[in-house]
Amino acid sequence: MIRTHDAGALRAEHADETVVLAGWVARRRDHGGVVFLDLREASGVVQVVVREDDLAHDLRAEYCIKVTGKVRVRPAGNENPEIPTGAIEVVADEIEVLSEAAPLPFQLDSAADVAEETRLRYRYLDIRRHEMAENLRIRSKATYIAHEIMKDNGFVYVETPYMTRSTPEGARDFLVPVRLQPGHWYALPQSPQLFKQLLMVGGMERYYQLTRCFRDEDLRADRQPEFTQIDLEMSFVDEEDIFRVGEELFSRLLSEVRGVDLPRPFRRMKFAEAMDRFGSDKPDLRFGQEITELTEYFANTEFRVFRNPYVGAVVMPGGASQTRKELDAWQEWAKSRGAKGLAYVLVEEDGSLGGPVAKNLSDEERSGLAEKVGAKPGDAVFFAAGFRTASQELLGAARLEIGKRCNLIDESKWEILWITDMPLFEEGDEPGMWTPVHHPFTAPAVEVEKTFQDDPENAPSRAFDLVLNGYELVSGSIRIHQAEVQQRVFDVIGLSKAEAESKFGFLLEAFKYGPPPHGGLAVGWDRVVMLLAGQNTIREVIAFPKTASGGDPLTGAPTEIPPEQREEAGIDFVPEKDAK
Amino acid sequence: MIRTHDAGALRAEHADETVVLAGWVARRRDHGGVVFLDLREASGVVQVVVREDDLAHDLRAEYCIKVTGKVRVRPAGNENPEIPTGAIEVVADEIEVLSEAAPLPFQLDSAADVAEETRLRYRYLDIRRHEMAENLRIRSKATYIAHEIMKDNGFVYVETPYMTRSTPEGARDFLVPVRLQPGHWYALPQSPQLFKQLLMVGGMERYYQLTRCFRDEDLRADRQPEFTQIDLEMSFVDEEDIFRVGEELFSRLLSEVRGVDLPRPFRRMKFAEAMDRFGSDKPDLRFGQEITELTEYFANTEFRVFRNPYVGAVVMPGGASQTRKELDAWQEWAKSRGAKGLAYVLVEEDGSLGGPVAKNLSDEERSGLAEKVGAKPGDAVFFAAGFRTASQELLGAARLEIGKRCNLIDESKWEILWITDMPLFEEGDEPGMWTPVHHPFTAPAVEVEKTFQDDPENAPSRAFDLVLNGYELVSGSIRIHQAEVQQRVFDVIGLSKAEAESKFGFLLEAFKYGPPPHGGLAVGWDRVVMLLAGQNTIREVIAFPKTASGGDPLTGAPTEIPPEQREEAGIDFVPEKDAK
Repeated sequence: MIRTHDAGALRAEHADETVVLAGWVARRRDHGGVVFLDLREASGVVQVVVREDDLAHDLRAEYCIKVTGKVRVRPAGNENPEIPTGAIEVVADEIEVLSEAAPLPFQLDSAADVAEETRLRYRYLDIRRHEMAENLRIRSKATYIAHEIMKDNGFVYVETPYMTRSTPEGARDFLVPVRLQPGHWYALPQSPQLFKQLLMVGGMERYYQLTRCFRDEDLRADRQPEFTQIDLEMSFVDEEDIFRVGEELFSRLLSEVRGVDLPRPFRRMKFAEAMDRFGSDKPDLRFGQEITELTEYFANTEFRVFRNPYVGAVVMPGGASQTRKELDAWQEWAKSRGAKGLAYVLVEEDGSLGGPVAKNLSDEERSGLAEKVGAKPGDAVFFAAGFRTASQELLGAARLEIGKRCNLIDESKWEILWITDMPLFEEGDEPGMWTPVHHPFTAPAVEVEKTFQDDPENAPSRAFDLVLNGYELVSGSIRIHQAEVQQRVFDVIGLSKAEAESKFGFLLEAFKYGPPPHGGLAVGWDRVVMLLAGQNTIREVIAFPKTASGGDPLTGAPTEIPPEQREEAGIDFVPEKDAK
Repeated sequence: MIRTHDAGALRAEHADETVVLAGWVARRRDHGGVVFLDLREASGVVQVVVREDDLAHDLRAEYCIKVTGKVRVRPAGNENPEIPTGAIEVVADEIEVLSEAAPLPFQLDSAADVAEETRLRYRYLDIRRHEMAENLRIRSKATYIAHEIMKDNGFVYVETPYMTRSTPEGARDFLVPVRLQPGHWYALPQSPQLFKQLLMVGGMERYYQLTRCFRDEDLRADRQPEFTQIDLEMSFVDEEDIFRVGEELFSRLLSEVRGVDLPRPFRRMKFAEAMDRFGSDKPDLRFGQEITELTEYFANTEFRVFRNPYVGAVVMPGGASQTRKELDAWQEWAKSRGAKGLAYVLVEEDGSLGGPVAKNLSDEERSGLAEKVGAKPGDAVFFAAGFRTASQELLGAARLEIGKRCNLIDESKWEILWITDMPLFEEGDEPGMWTPVHHPFTAPAVEVEKTFQDDPENAPSRAFDLVLNGYELVSGSIRIHQAEVQQRVFDVIGLSKAEAESKFGFLLEAFKYGPPPHGGLAVGWDRVVMLLAGQNTIREVIAFPKTASGGDPLTGAPTEIPPEQREEAGIDFVPEKDAK
């Protein structure tokens, strides 16, 4: 090592020791004849005092230097209690420039004001900032904790292929041309789903992997074309066994990274209850403002808008004092979500109801409404009416908006829960067309195992999610291991034998050879680390993320390729049968 | 859990306990009224006794079953000391078939005789075999040990991108078309080399990753288009610091997985010495038969073949008794390696020399030769003459052949060593054209740092390898961190500023901002695990490997893609400027 000591580890007890340090010039202050440098390296920051100006006069920000000097206790009154090394400083005898730094594209301590694109373009400078470096360290620490838990629970780490065949996850696959077999393509896996199920057929019993997944989806904020999962699968288990592993993982992560103790077992909520109360399959339980269903309440209403399969409401505390403009903005907000608008009433200080909807309601409807939905004078009540799920989702979104605008969310809370009994199917683009909510290998709930095909709409599955503070972090299920059940699922989703065979015939074939009952889950690792690090986007916890358009401003990827490379890779190969 | 006990953990102390087990029927033996089943699961195998025939009559090999029964100590004389559960058996009260198995494509205990393609086609059955399952468990265990060591040494696990820009490693990149930016392509990384150097510039100081690498190379035995590396990089270090980490890793792996203690520090040998003595940069030190250089010895020879820049020899013990056919086969062997042949003399029992070469030598040359090369009566001596490196490599290969054919290799030995002072450059396809032996960021040895450009051929570098039993497992180096040195390397290899800029301009730019001195290594993880598991090919330690042609017989990857997919992926996009 070039250095004898870690700069960040120096304390008063090192006084009078001669040390060699190496790191970067984080800051420089000149005080007439004496120069103070903040020397920064991985272990922390220490103050270096340079007396002879000729040692320091070349040094600029982010020069990489080696300092030989003596540790001394800082003069009384000069201590800096804000840094661990604040009791001491190092008086430099010798400074060697290991490498120089050009003028910086941005100052490191003002990175918060710099465009993200610029931070990504110079990510190597961005990572020198304490916050970014800390994000990556938290990620590393969390990853190690995960490995430890998996090992302690008897899981076997198995690496599955990245260049493989399409997996049936619904999104588009990224493709890779095969030079040695022109006209043939690998697909990058959207998840190791099929391989982990094959490993269960193979008797591996407890598999896990920290694995990259690839999905060629359209642009959306905070989505990466490649992302990381902790993926696991277990044999001979039911949901309880999987929950236990998941709870151990999240308890330890929260405890060891954030010092938060999560009560165990985690709370559980059925999907239907989550939708009814919170209008979301990933409810944020850090605040209340639950949805009230009013379908019964308005069963005989004369108001046309409320004559619908579902009517519900959510309360905005103090919302009655919103300006006309603010109330109009809610309409725009609802329209941007695809709704027609957001009906509302305002509860006046005298308890009477204002707003355009109120006059359409009967006296009776008006009189009991505030109490029914739990609104107090001064509150606003927002309504949604229409099909059940869509209306609940609108109210759920409104609830989140209310939570943010009214500062109802207790940011110090960590509210985690399992969502269970997820539906097995959802209606596809056309009525009567059913698609699997998760993937076609998800087992139906035990009570509908024999009958789910008769009422696909209402068939619960053995799929579950884990939700933390309104983020879905984990998705999992017990899988189907009986060929007969699998066939009925294919029948419901209209997948012919030929299609099933061509898509994942190899998995169906494997299932002929004594597959064990099994299930598992996948953890959205980027998002977990984002929450652990207290960040708002996953890009802050990925060393080299891509922008929304899939580019990397640092390397310039993706790039055009020269025609020779295109030819060599066999990209333009046309099979003879297709050639014209 | 479906089971109450792990089958493989049952012992005499469990006698009389009622247990529920779950696993696979590994074997079935019928003994008139009583059926014995070997029940296999992840923890091991236990014997199940089924008294009522109707419980067992449906069960065939590899059925997945649940057994409820009572543990009992086996009758005296029936114990099986070969399995850990051999003292007991489980008398079944109830057997539930969890899933049936079709007739097997091959019997699991005869897999050794089955074509590898068939094993890969039914990998899920192959993995049920103890040996394959054990290989994957060893891999998992070794991986965890590596994580532990890295964490204990303060390394930060950082995930680098898989969809990125070409890296300059020499082999071809696999490409990925970008639907959202038609005409643009990602490359799958051949290694995280550039990213780990960027992380060093970013002050991460100690980075590591278990990472997949992708190289589109031509077919060769035991090569996979995707393979796994443990990749690490350190700042402010010299070779000694990197060696220390590497030695801790391999010592602990060998000790904890194989119970072998490697003496530390590991032996070191300079590249030139390895070539001189063993004709290889990855010498197998488990046996002797070192090469003797004879250039001086034949300095004044009349024998035209030996009038060459280099002459050397290797001895084959007992080789004089080879038949004419065997000696001819050596000529074919040499030709298949691109040599003209393999000159030899046979040392007769009386000490005289036989074979066609002997008569071309002078009396004096003949008389001292056997002693000079260490040959005894009955031995054969093989010669190579020509350019130094090529001749040494031929002798090195002959030495390995001799080691195998003569059973000289002590398979119980673990001979590990660092090869240091690797050359910086090697001659390219044309004389005077220099290419980097590793990559263009490898630092020149300190003593030639200022002068390497004057004599590229003989410039040593700060690159090193770690070799175990003749396998190169690790490759690493100290990197260049000074722009001026980097420029002189580019000059030697004839890389223009424009080319350097277009290939890795972003790295060169990063190096303008105070890069620290740094270096690192990459571990060929598949091969390490192969040796730890005592296997002969890396395919035995990869769950789902590809065949030599890059295919996966299980999933059928790679596949053709339908024209719609091709169109959607933007594969055929032609930029306007190129369209005709």
